Amino acid sequence: MVRIKDVAERAGVSVGTVSKVINNTEGVSRKTKAAVLKVIAELNYHPNLYARNMRAKSSRTIGIFVPLINEPYFLPFYDGINKRLEQIGYTPILFSGITQQSSEGTLDLLSQMMHRNLDGLIVSTYGWDDATIAKLARMAEEIPIVSYKRKFEDSPIHSVGVDDFEGMYRAASHLLQIGHRHIAYMNPAPELETSRQRLGGYRQALADHGVEERSEYIVDCPSYRIMDGYHYAHRALQTRPLPTAIIGGNDTLAIGVMKYLQELQMRIPHDIAVMGYDELPLAQLMSPQLSTMSLPTEAMTALAVDLIVGSERGGEPARHHAFDTKLIVRSSTDMTAKVHLDYP
Amino acid sequence: MVRIKDVAERAGVSVGTVSKVINNTEGVSRKTKAAVLKVIAELNYHPNLYARNMRAKSSRTIGIFVPLINEPYFLPFYDGINKRLEQIGYTPILFSGITQQSSEGTLDLLSQMMHRNLDGLIVSTYGWDDATIAKLARMAEEIPIVSYKRKFEDSPIHSVGVDDFEGMYRAASHLLQIGHRHIAYMNPAPELETSRQRLGGYRQALADHGVEERSEYIVDCPSYRIMDGYHYAHRALQTRPLPTAIIGGNDTLAIGVMKYLQELQMRIPHDIAVMGYDELPLAQLMSPQLSTMSLPTEAMTALAVDLIVGSERGGEPARHHAFDTKLIVRSSTDMTAKVHLDYP
Repeated sequence: MVRIKDVAERAGVSVGTVSKVINNTEGVSRKTKAAVLKVIAELNYHPNLYARNMRAKSSRTIGIFVPLINEPYFLPFYDGINKRLEQIGYTPILFSGITQQSSEGTLDLLSQMMHRNLDGLIVSTYGWDDATIAKLARMAEEIPIVSYKRKFEDSPIHSVGVDDFEGMYRAASHLLQIGHRHIAYMNPAPELETSRQRLGGYRQALADHGVEERSEYIVDCPSYRIMDGYHYAHRALQTRPLPTAIIGGNDTLAIGVMKYLQELQMRIPHDIAVMGYDELPLAQLMSPQLSTMSLPTEAMTALAVDLIVGSERGGEPARHHAFDTKLIVRSSTDMTAKVHLDYP
Repeated sequence: MVRIKDVAERAGVSVGTVSKVINNTEGVSRKTKAAVLKVIAELNYHPNLYARNMRAKSSRTIGIFVPLINEPYFLPFYDGINKRLEQIGYTPILFSGITQQSSEGTLDLLSQMMHRNLDGLIVSTYGWDDATIAKLARMAEEIPIVSYKRKFEDSPIHSVGVDDFEGMYRAASHLLQIGHRHIAYMNPAPELETSRQRLGGYRQALADHGVEERSEYIVDCPSYRIMDGYHYAHRALQTRPLPTAIIGGNDTLAIGVMKYLQELQMRIPHDIAVMGYDELPLAQLMSPQLSTMSLPTEAMTALAVDLIVGSERGGEPARHHAFDTKLIVRSSTDMTAKVHLDYP
């Protein structure tokens, strides 16, 4: 079993310094703190939670809020946060519990959170109205709050996300580079800023490859759920020439599209290639496996936690942290791609 | 918006009685309480949480504990509990947060729970050791605890589960009835009682159809994870005659088997049929869609909640509630099955 002195030794600091980092008390430089946290992670050190909670002032509890937990993106998100919290001996509390989240219900939950002495909050604000976001911004004056994916200008809310314009630009470029010229795009929840960025990346890629954009190839979907891809895919097939490839603005939409095409006995990628975005573990379970853009979820969620744990209340102004995506080519766009399964 | 008097009217009781049910105070018969809860569910009535929390003695909070949240079974389980809690105006708190749960970590979390004034706890005890279960039993003397799937003899812990012997008996019988005689079985975590029951059902079905059991067709897997199905499937193919069908003791194992067979370019169900058990939403996203036995997760989780909310501390002895499974025939065993997608 790893003990605190093992951590101190490896990090080259005193046991007292490690203890300060664990209890998040002052008097440790940012650099030392980072080094100690790294060693804690490497050694998989678990401070004695119970004894420590008695001493520390902070609740060592972070709230996680997601509007809907039965979304495929939820698990990697929650899992990433948990991994990081476990490393530093914090406990997560999940607020959600609701399959069809109402604005009233969200406000209720936010009020409840403020009574729980949380050290901070990581939220996915998908579907929130302005009043709810205003409430969140007021809360962010009191406890550190990190928004996942969505960014807010001139707000006390931190955010971690990806460069969606660049990500979708590269997704579309992959298809253009292997010869596709008729590429449909399933546009999830067009009112979202992330969706606008992705759509912009798709358009720019077409333009840069000298391919004329056709509005009939852009299919707006009400949300990013699998069933939307399934129900709206037929619209992408109403245009002539038929698209030779379809991009889902999310993996979930792409998976719905695949299921629809397979019902029509269309072969993927021979008849139509399908490309996703925002890699889900699910993508590699599909047949054929789904090409996608991978988000560094683990790094993003770790930073979300670190922004809270490292926050001095009223300290640094909030800002947006953008990560890069990575192209994952699988057999839904390239029939020579090697099959690989590594499900969590 | 539905109000308390609408509930009272429809249930044929006074507003005071509805209020008592909502606040879980005494003086309402079991029958009336059940009737009121039913109307609350039907009308989708949401008591004003905030005002009510001020008045009520109970915390109106139920803890949910799962060893690993990144398991496919987690979402339907959590979702079902949430739906029911939402109907009765309770809040769930999820304890887990940990991807590789240790026994020490579990005991820590259980201690934390007891300090949170929970009304009760719903737990999945997969992988727990005896010491941890003994601790849970001691906790069950103080707050109502419901175990999901696993039952305990002579224990204060309630449980809801399914008749796994009968369920797997019917899964195997489906394959036998469509002509299979060489049926392999992927046996998840053989030490679990649920696994023993399922294996027993498979064996009994063979015996009742006059098919000789072959031990080489039974492949023990360390857990029920997708990757176990994927890594252990080759063992089912080492025997001659080759099996014409493989049953996964869980959908996850069956999905892993499918991915392995597809890497070998084997056609499902033409070369080998694949059957799952314990339906996951994931099963219908597979190509071909996976035949399985469906568990009434919604009814099971609703009962788990009701057992807690309806519990008088120190009242009725705990018992096991067993539900029936349902056969879902899809194209992984029957190529004429109609494709249907209804993802949550």
